[in-house]
Amino acid sequence: MVKFNQTRLNKLQQTLINKQIDLAYISDFKTIQYLTGFGSNPYERILAMIIFADQDPFIFAPALEVQVVKSVGWPFDLYGYQDNEDGLSMIYSHIKKRQANPKKIATEQGNLTLARFNRLVAAFPDADYSFNLTPIVEHQRLIKDTDEIQKLVQAGHDADLAFAAGFKALKVGKTELQVAAELEFATKNRNVPEMSFATLVQTAEHAADPHGETSDLPLKDNSLVLFDLGTVYQGYISDASRTVALGKPTDHMREVHQVVLEAQLAAQAAVKPGITAASLDKIARDIITKAGYGQYFIHRLGHGMGMSEHEYPSIMQGNDLILEPGMCFSLEPGVYIPGDLGVRIEDCIHVTANGCEPFTHMDKKLQLF
Amino acid sequence: MVKFNQTRLNKLQQTLINKQIDLAYISDFKTIQYLTGFGSNPYERILAMIIFADQDPFIFAPALEVQVVKSVGWPFDLYGYQDNEDGLSMIYSHIKKRQANPKKIATEQGNLTLARFNRLVAAFPDADYSFNLTPIVEHQRLIKDTDEIQKLVQAGHDADLAFAAGFKALKVGKTELQVAAELEFATKNRNVPEMSFATLVQTAEHAADPHGETSDLPLKDNSLVLFDLGTVYQGYISDASRTVALGKPTDHMREVHQVVLEAQLAAQAAVKPGITAASLDKIARDIITKAGYGQYFIHRLGHGMGMSEHEYPSIMQGNDLILEPGMCFSLEPGVYIPGDLGVRIEDCIHVTANGCEPFTHMDKKLQLF
Repeated sequence: MVKFNQTRLNKLQQTLINKQIDLAYISDFKTIQYLTGFGSNPYERILAMIIFADQDPFIFAPALEVQVVKSVGWPFDLYGYQDNEDGLSMIYSHIKKRQANPKKIATEQGNLTLARFNRLVAAFPDADYSFNLTPIVEHQRLIKDTDEIQKLVQAGHDADLAFAAGFKALKVGKTELQVAAELEFATKNRNVPEMSFATLVQTAEHAADPHGETSDLPLKDNSLVLFDLGTVYQGYISDASRTVALGKPTDHMREVHQVVLEAQLAAQAAVKPGITAASLDKIARDIITKAGYGQYFIHRLGHGMGMSEHEYPSIMQGNDLILEPGMCFSLEPGVYIPGDLGVRIEDCIHVTANGCEPFTHMDKKLQLF
Repeated sequence: MVKFNQTRLNKLQQTLINKQIDLAYISDFKTIQYLTGFGSNPYERILAMIIFADQDPFIFAPALEVQVVKSVGWPFDLYGYQDNEDGLSMIYSHIKKRQANPKKIATEQGNLTLARFNRLVAAFPDADYSFNLTPIVEHQRLIKDTDEIQKLVQAGHDADLAFAAGFKALKVGKTELQVAAELEFATKNRNVPEMSFATLVQTAEHAADPHGETSDLPLKDNSLVLFDLGTVYQGYISDASRTVALGKPTDHMREVHQVVLEAQLAAQAAVKPGITAASLDKIARDIITKAGYGQYFIHRLGHGMGMSEHEYPSIMQGNDLILEPGMCFSLEPGVYIPGDLGVRIEDCIHVTANGCEPFTHMDKKLQLF
């Protein structure tokens, strides 16, 4: 079980003090998960955390989540609401009881919807809302602490075993879905509670669609199969891709795989504190472009990850962010030739003092099945 | 494959004309899925659809989604962008090429983030943004058409078979996760591409946590097991719950199950056009309260469903919405007694001319395994 972490909360509260902000309205459930250990997508329900510069915070949650919030050891006030109550009004009145006229309210502008923002403004019409907390939270989450790295290492280990189960299931004529089903079955039987996303298994030219889905297509002989999968460990995820061969790959398949592998390995070897995210993308892209496949590498090199695969930093052209130890992201070059094949090789890594460490260790050279 | 549906788009465009709105900025990927057949969560990337009152719409999507949008038969303009490009600026310039000075821009205020709204306002500082498209879209999606009902029927059929697979896997000592893994394995092997959410299997007192997760707890003998599951069929989902007994249930277990079943059946029998959502909640809640378990029924009776389990209408106290044919929602009373047991019985239904039809048909009386 994930437990409440006072250090992270203190750090964010210090930002409020420094910026003379009276209170922060936290609306992103991932931020709440990061700060409290309690993680749950409320969907259309309301889940919020109010952090004050000068007093203790509170959490406001759907009634049916209250027990779960308590179970992570949340030591401060906690209010539940029933589905038929006006949750937003209740939050404002809890705020007013503590602070009648907050002058400066920070919100997560990258998450808060316009509708809920308009309600907040109506409740506190005189406050200054110009401060955007999103970049502050993103920056704080960007550098993973030891506890987070340990969870990511465990998730990576689970992903390696999931690959092994998937490779074992490979057989010409089985559908992509059957292979994914066997892979996930074996993984859940090892007590991995959930995959971080629906496992992707794509055969032959179907793999040329980098955002396609696992389908009922049968696996073709003498072709490549692309796997992209992830697992969840205590709220932290793994995310990795391998492309393997079923039967006898052609020289063309071998060549594309080799180019992508070289790009992936070169980027991974280049990671170290002090260089930029953009330079990693360039290292991988240059190798693929030089080999003549540049037009088929149609996405960024990687994305940040931690509690989800949609965190910072983005590893792409134009991002001059300088890497620091503790940053975690994917390195996943790919070549997608429509009507022909798709190859992607991906490990997520964390930046260390001198280089990086991958979370997944499954062999990356072209494995034959 | 889901295909582009011109009728739905025309209807929304007519609203713009009626309300003298120049253009609508659609930011919710579920709305885009509803209007186009193309469904993909863009996460931090940008996916938008711009609908004009007086000209054809366009879609703006991440480069790696462009092929997929084309494949649904989207007949109008489509622009892709690379990860390193400023997508929002590109959208604004595509708008300006068509309409230099839109006076009235409608947005989905229930979805658009404050950060993206601020960017939009900066690009079109003189426009009126007061019109909220969210209720219009929600209302349009509230009444499912024949095509949608057919997909929901198929998803319900898949859910029934998933229950059967899960019940077959029941055995004292197996973990909740093992049962869920077998259930999902069997379901995916039947070519169901994905579950609509992680299958919930909860044993004995663990089921008293209505938002808990499937865990490594072993199934207890002589106790209840709660299943909550859903499948996806062409973008439409099923969602259903059953509570069954493993070994010999006590009289107390039988009684709670019977109360919940009566509440569920009474609500389902009461559904017809003309009555309110709130009255259904009251019918179920009164039965549970009368039996002495009212304090343990801690959530609304149901939620709307279609492309997700988070649609309208909400079946709860205070919602005086009058039911109409084509509305689809869950009826899922539950009793959760901490430290003791949890029972939930759920079918999703669609309102018909005289009553309702459930999408799932698995036996609801207490089944013994």
